[in-house]
Amino acid sequence: MKKGIAQYEVGEQVDLFFLVKSSTRGIASNGKPFLTVILQDKTGDIEAKLWDASPEDEENYAAEKIVKAAGEVMTYRGRNQLKVRQIRPANPQDGVRVADFLEVAPLSREEMVESITQCIFEMKNSNIQRITRHLLNKYQNAFLEYPAATKNHHEFVSGLAYHVVSMLKVAKALADLYPSLNRDLLYSGVILHDLGKVIELSGPVSTTYTLEGNLLGHISIMVNEIGQAAEELSIKGEEVLLLQHMVLSHHGKEEWGSPKKPLIKEAEILHLIDNVDAKMNMLDRALEHVKPGEFTEKIFALDNRSFYKPTI
Amino acid sequence: MKKGIAQYEVGEQVDLFFLVKSSTRGIASNGKPFLTVILQDKTGDIEAKLWDASPEDEENYAAEKIVKAAGEVMTYRGRNQLKVRQIRPANPQDGVRVADFLEVAPLSREEMVESITQCIFEMKNSNIQRITRHLLNKYQNAFLEYPAATKNHHEFVSGLAYHVVSMLKVAKALADLYPSLNRDLLYSGVILHDLGKVIELSGPVSTTYTLEGNLLGHISIMVNEIGQAAEELSIKGEEVLLLQHMVLSHHGKEEWGSPKKPLIKEAEILHLIDNVDAKMNMLDRALEHVKPGEFTEKIFALDNRSFYKPTI
Amino acid sequence: MKKGIAQYEVGEQVDLFFLVKSSTRGIASNGKPFLTVILQDKTGDIEAKLWDASPEDEENYAAEKIVKAAGEVMTYRGRNQLKVRQIRPANPQDGVRVADFLEVAPLSREEMVESITQCIFEMKNSNIQRITRHLLNKYQNAFLEYPAATKNHHEFVSGLAYHVVSMLKVAKALADLYPSLNRDLLYSGVILHDLGKVIELSGPVSTTYTLEGNLLGHISIMVNEIGQAAEELSIKGEEVLLLQHMVLSHHGKEEWGSPKKPLIKEAEILHLIDNVDAKMNMLDRALEHVKPGEFTEKIFALDNRSFYKPTI
Amino acid sequence: MKKGIAQYEVGEQVDLFFLVKSSTRGIASNGKPFLTVILQDKTGDIEAKLWDASPEDEENYAAEKIVKAAGEVMTYRGRNQLKVRQIRPANPQDGVRVADFLEVAPLSREEMVESITQCIFEMKNSNIQRITRHLLNKYQNAFLEYPAATKNHHEFVSGLAYHVVSMLKVAKALADLYPSLNRDLLYSGVILHDLGKVIELSGPVSTTYTLEGNLLGHISIMVNEIGQAAEELSIKGEEVLLLQHMVLSHHGKEEWGSPKKPLIKEAEILHLIDNVDAKMNMLDRALEHVKPGEFTEKIFALDNRSFYKPTI
Amino acid sequence: MKKGIAQYEVGEQVDLFFLVKSSTRGIASNGKPFLTVILQDKTGDIEAKLWDASPEDEENYAAEKIVKAAGEVMTYRGRNQLKVRQIRPANPQDGVRVADFLEVAPLSREEMVESITQCIFEMKNSNIQRITRHLLNKYQNAFLEYPAATKNHHEFVSGLAYHVVSMLKVAKALADLYPSLNRDLLYSGVILHDLGKVIELSGPVSTTYTLEGNLLGHISIMVNEIGQAAEELSIKGEEVLLLQHMVLSHHGKEEWGSPKKPLIKEAEILHLIDNVDAKMNMLDRALEHVKPGEFTEKIFALDNRSFYKPTI
Amino acid sequence: MKKGIAQYEVGEQVDLFFLVKSSTRGIASNGKPFLTVILQDKTGDIEAKLWDASPEDEENYAAEKIVKAAGEVMTYRGRNQLKVRQIRPANPQDGVRVADFLEVAPLSREEMVESITQCIFEMKNSNIQRITRHLLNKYQNAFLEYPAATKNHHEFVSGLAYHVVSMLKVAKALADLYPSLNRDLLYSGVILHDLGKVIELSGPVSTTYTLEGNLLGHISIMVNEIGQAAEELSIKGEEVLLLQHMVLSHHGKEEWGSPKKPLIKEAEILHLIDNVDAKMNMLDRALEHVKPGEFTEKIFALDNRSFYKPTI
Repeated sequence: MKKGIAQYEVGEQVDLFFLVKSSTRGIASNGKPFLTVILQDKTGDIEAKLWDASPEDEENYAAEKIVKAAGEVMTYRGRNQLKVRQIRPANPQDGVRVADFLEVAPLSREEMVESITQCIFEMKNSNIQRITRHLLNKYQNAFLEYPAATKNHHEFVSGLAYHVVSMLKVAKALADLYPSLNRDLLYSGVILHDLGKVIELSGPVSTTYTLEGNLLGHISIMVNEIGQAAEELSIKGEEVLLLQHMVLSHHGKEEWGSPKKPLIKEAEILHLIDNVDAKMNMLDRALEHVKPGEFTEKIFALDNRSFYKPTI
Repeated sequence: MKKGIAQYEVGEQVDLFFLVKSSTRGIASNGKPFLTVILQDKTGDIEAKLWDASPEDEENYAAEKIVKAAGEVMTYRGRNQLKVRQIRPANPQDGVRVADFLEVAPLSREEMVESITQCIFEMKNSNIQRITRHLLNKYQNAFLEYPAATKNHHEFVSGLAYHVVSMLKVAKALADLYPSLNRDLLYSGVILHDLGKVIELSGPVSTTYTLEGNLLGHISIMVNEIGQAAEELSIKGEEVLLLQHMVLSHHGKEEWGSPKKPLIKEAEILHLIDNVDAKMNMLDRALEHVKPGEFTEKIFALDNRSFYKPTI
Repeated sequence: MKKGIAQYEVGEQVDLFFLVKSSTRGIASNGKPFLTVILQDKTGDIEAKLWDASPEDEENYAAEKIVKAAGEVMTYRGRNQLKVRQIRPANPQDGVRVADFLEVAPLSREEMVESITQCIFEMKNSNIQRITRHLLNKYQNAFLEYPAATKNHHEFVSGLAYHVVSMLKVAKALADLYPSLNRDLLYSGVILHDLGKVIELSGPVSTTYTLEGNLLGHISIMVNEIGQAAEELSIKGEEVLLLQHMVLSHHGKEEWGSPKKPLIKEAEILHLIDNVDAKMNMLDRALEHVKPGEFTEKIFALDNRSFYKPTI
Repeated sequence: MKKGIAQYEVGEQVDLFFLVKSSTRGIASNGKPFLTVILQDKTGDIEAKLWDASPEDEENYAAEKIVKAAGEVMTYRGRNQLKVRQIRPANPQDGVRVADFLEVAPLSREEMVESITQCIFEMKNSNIQRITRHLLNKYQNAFLEYPAATKNHHEFVSGLAYHVVSMLKVAKALADLYPSLNRDLLYSGVILHDLGKVIELSGPVSTTYTLEGNLLGHISIMVNEIGQAAEELSIKGEEVLLLQHMVLSHHGKEEWGSPKKPLIKEAEILHLIDNVDAKMNMLDRALEHVKPGEFTEKIFALDNRSFYKPTI
Repeated sequence: MKKGIAQYEVGEQVDLFFLVKSSTRGIASNGKPFLTVILQDKTGDIEAKLWDASPEDEENYAAEKIVKAAGEVMTYRGRNQLKVRQIRPANPQDGVRVADFLEVAPLSREEMVESITQCIFEMKNSNIQRITRHLLNKYQNAFLEYPAATKNHHEFVSGLAYHVVSMLKVAKALADLYPSLNRDLLYSGVILHDLGKVIELSGPVSTTYTLEGNLLGHISIMVNEIGQAAEELSIKGEEVLLLQHMVLSHHGKEEWGSPKKPLIKEAEILHLIDNVDAKMNMLDRALEHVKPGEFTEKIFALDNRSFYKPTI
Repeated sequence: MKKGIAQYEVGEQVDLFFLVKSSTRGIASNGKPFLTVILQDKTGDIEAKLWDASPEDEENYAAEKIVKAAGEVMTYRGRNQLKVRQIRPANPQDGVRVADFLEVAPLSREEMVESITQCIFEMKNSNIQRITRHLLNKYQNAFLEYPAATKNHHEFVSGLAYHVVSMLKVAKALADLYPSLNRDLLYSGVILHDLGKVIELSGPVSTTYTLEGNLLGHISIMVNEIGQAAEELSIKGEEVLLLQHMVLSHHGKEEWGSPKKPLIKEAEILHLIDNVDAKMNMLDRALEHVKPGEFTEKIFALDNRSFYKPTI
């Protein structure tokens, strides 16, 4: 892979294309406006200040624009900052596209689709199978593009599908080790648990919460969707209720947004699998940025802990 | 009103018909079975022990049977107990019916229906009006019969409708005092907020939780129902989402079973009105049983407080 | 009403008189002092930076001074800021007074006095009536001028009296709907509950906590005052204790500063009425600043929630 | 000291006078009433069952009666129980008085009075001295007789004064070690901190809460008393406020009943001294009943811990 | 498997050998002593009352004795109870041994030893390997016999080893799926995490806490053991510290008894694996006792939840 | 004592030597780097900004360097700041050493050693005595130099030993007042309770946490050390376990880092003594900086309270 911004050390000279992740206007102590921009490529991001910013600059260096920037990597309050020497908007001749700057899941769409399809195929209970397939088909495009969250874990293009694929593998392993688990319920729970995020979140880039996301949340959204799917497919029976409960309870506790705690075994295990995969993802991503013998930055979603990277 | 069990003092002789509220079998220290029965009439209930209980007794004095019992009111560990001298099952000639022993709301069905109908009639937003009317019609019979809970507050026949009617009056008063409140949202929120209980609970007598009640809860049940109603009535628009949010958030906090806290003003006020009416009901019922200058029993749903009845 | 600072949009030119709400000295990166001032009028406030501030400037633009300022409204970190072009202290010829810049309650003193007097007049228990009237008379001037708090809700001139008047209306409505409530206790509780704030707080402008406010708090202060009033009026009897308990418990819980939880019905309801009125005030004021379809800023005193303003 | 009930082992025969601490009526499985009585002497107490209790028995063996009982010490659910062979009410010829059966503080009234008087004498600030002396004189009799609590710690005759005397000794030691402490404030805080209990509690025997105790609590009661004392003594000045704050905050936290946390150093230390002395008392009393190498019963007021008595 | 007590329904006649699990003496309302005994076999246990118990009975039916009992299964307060018709102590001719009545892990000692040995064999880091092997050898006998807890989960003979073997399988599966995990650390953490229980607990039958268990707990005990093992083996290096941290932090939070939260990835995952296996064990055992469509008893260690057994 | 930085008022001219406590690089709005340095002497510290900082400046004014700085004391956001007019690195001719700028305990090493030695000498239990002496000898040098913490309390050179000496005095006073306390256990507990900090922390200057400190913490470190000491001294017996428990539990609760709550009386008292001395130290140091009638800054380790300094 090409050397990206995450690979540059303090003191090195940079000359790269970036996507502007965010851009905020400030007033400097000389009374003139300046811009604080976050520049990102596939490997990470870096902050930069653009002094004496004209209204034209504000437009050129707004969020979601592509730019070419040169300068030196410096350090400020323990974080890297780019001291910009030169910057310009990208132009068509540069041949760069937004997708070139976004972090994506390490599996291809095809691999992910196949993995999930295989699990649905293995289901023996046709009610569960039909509801799961129906909902996945209904939201397939978004499902394959959306991140799993706006921050914390799997916050990259296709993060949602990648999270589901990883969890399915863990679910399979656990179902092999604990044969009393109902494999159909567990697989379907994994596939559907966060699918409401395709309605809760705005999309794969500059992700924010939709009004429905704010007022209902992905859990309630998906519980409704399961009910509606069952109606459309004329499915009656405990399966509908069980799947709704799996989704409803997968945050594990009321305080964490589940109006009911898990009350069936597979729901309890679904919550734990979600935990395992989300934490592995957060930890791997945080530990990537530190050397053996060092501690990571504080990770908010892990009780603000700094994790240690062993030297062995 | 006729003198009921709640009006008898310790030492008085009782000779009354009762409904058996519950009946539990025990083994006495002489090795013989006995029954602990709770006997109720419209005014309250009292515990009694039936010693040396035969299998026939167990059947005759099971829950939901009507009996005639005579004996003396005694006190045991601070609670009244009936020392039974004579007991027999009621027979057809006695001319008593289950309904004679159930506590009911102090308003008639007609009064309650009219009060609610009037509020729906006053609504100006036709989307809110149609959804509210549709759901009320769909569940009207159960709505007019169910209690508002299995215990704590409004746990009597038609308690649910009575709770709603009282809350509507408070809502009306507050909307008069604070004109910025959206009256339609507030009225509809009051009417729908607990309607899911007709699915969550088993019915007006010996009320328990249904499987759907246990696994989803009345909040999620009703959020789904609103979504489905909107679909059936082909209503689109923010109203659907707002009503779902009102119901979703009316417990006020995640810990109390609302997956989202109130995020619109009317939802916050709905939560407070629910609180006011539930607490007034609990307090009035607890204070009824004590004299001025005394404290009530500890009320579990009010942080286990004993309330004082002033002498002024 | 005249157009005030709250009505100016980003980009507009301003030329207005203001009251300086606060003024803080800083050192700019060029080593020169500057002032950060908050300028307010009746409609709201705005921040401004005064660069290269001389000692004379510091004096002219200190808190509670009146100034005339011209400039452009800009936005910085999501909040408006005034880019000052010209500023000068007001002079006697300008004919402006501090009172012109303070937000005040929407009712006149006379209206508020009358409303409260009427409630006291309606009381039937003369002990409660006399204690209430005595304390109100004792602190009447401050009561009619003080805010209800330094921030969060009713933080404007006469906010305390306005809060009481609104609560009395709610109390009246609830007492009509729930006749078991003791109207005298409830009215007196409303009138006295926050009266200790006239000793806890420093006054209506630039409000801070007094030493007595810090070390005892308005609740304990008022409980003492009730005891003393009863002594001066030679009133004995449960009423004194009940009123002290109403004030003592009106925050509802130990964690919220009430050394006892409410143990009489009217105390529980007083706590809820206080809640309703404080929340309505906070919500109305926060929602005033946003357009339909938007969310408010996070409101600290409401668990940091952002509230949504519906479009219907 | 004479052998008391606490010194009898399981299996031993008892023949002693007792004070009835409490007496509760029950219905046995044969339908006959029985009494559960707690019998106490100075060393401790023991439960006994009186079967087939007549109305006369109920009167003879009511709380606060003196009885003579003989029987065998047995064990039931890990606690001792007296299997009564013979019991009769005491009569005048027996020459026994209630005081013979009550546990009392290990210091005489004179010793305690002297110890406290000495501390007041040492005070240099006359305002603090006069308020302290005034209040102590006002409530001296009750202060010297009351327990410090209904249970948990120092729950014996003169327990309140004994608790204060012990705390004064600790206060003196700490003031010697940390000279920055204001000795007058600290001594006065110790003497007054729980004095409100003479109004909060009903008296030295069969102690319960008074109405004032329930609705206001000893903290608020005493804060009022200090204010009133200052008024009567025409004392103005920060001392009044500081003493009120010491008492107000001595439970250390809002959750524990102090409407303000300690905000002066001596108040913080007062809270800790109270803790030290209460815990030492609870622990010494609990450990008295176990042998080295054993654990005590769970102590509710110490987070339900069982404490170990070392063998060294 | 032979039909055991858990397979008998209410109303059936029982005639079986049992191990007395516990025996408590009580006094019946006729003044005579009786025994409450819990009788267990491999399948479960049942309560019984032995009326009019002689001192000889107390000895014969004490905990850990074997008895033969005949009677009828009844139900009392929702739990089964054996109404004993006949009971006698077992005698040598009966040919029954304590081990016949104890629940044991479903794997043989040999299978468990092999499974663990294999994991140690696979370790690549010799420091980790040597410490793990050393400690396992040191405590092997107890490790293979002890339960994993006194109650809640894996509370049967060899429960500790069985818990470790199950967790190793999950650890292996996760290490396969998340290759960034350090397999040696994870395996060793699993093997050592609860090994301190062989010192904390008294043994495989009638398990209680030792003094060391009460005062230090199995976590601190094992951290010390690792330090001592490293010393004896002259191992220095980060591995010692990392293994100590794995054990120290495996309860996940301070409130749950870990003085440090997990600060390395493998420690976080160890905590989750422990959770998964303990919960699967508790849930499988609780669900075994109910039929499809029913709820289990409340499970204390799972927040007192009752779990539902689906009918699909 | 010579006038130090803490004694200079706003507006005064300073010309002093300082130790650089920390130095952080920033980028000014003109794009040039600057340094924010904290300059300390024995009396306190002050912030300063060094504009247009060259790489040479960064090196000269790094942490732990000594400098001579002249300028004026200003105030910025309520804290003093030094406006530097002139600054230069110290040179050998200046004759200043790092130790001249560090705050130290108010007792000499000799005084502290003697005080502790005396307590060990008084011990009667030779096992406790030998373990205590062994561990103190092992870590004596560090013990006499280390601070008791990186911040909050006793964060100065020799702070650890000084904290222990103060606590020993309180322990002695309490053991005199409460003769049931085991003096040997208590003294040893005081001496050893924080001794693990010599391994947890990096040293007396610019104190940070070591890896062992982060992953195990001083409590577990010391528990291990006691076990090892006992082994080396061939001491067996309950004393070892009791001392380990004293150290283990001295934070008082699981949430505060003690894996077990205190379960022996001396452990409970040790926790309280630690509290008293730490709080006295924090309060004395905070109150030193304010005048009578003022409040201190918020003290984080005391629930963020501001304490009042009385005027009496």
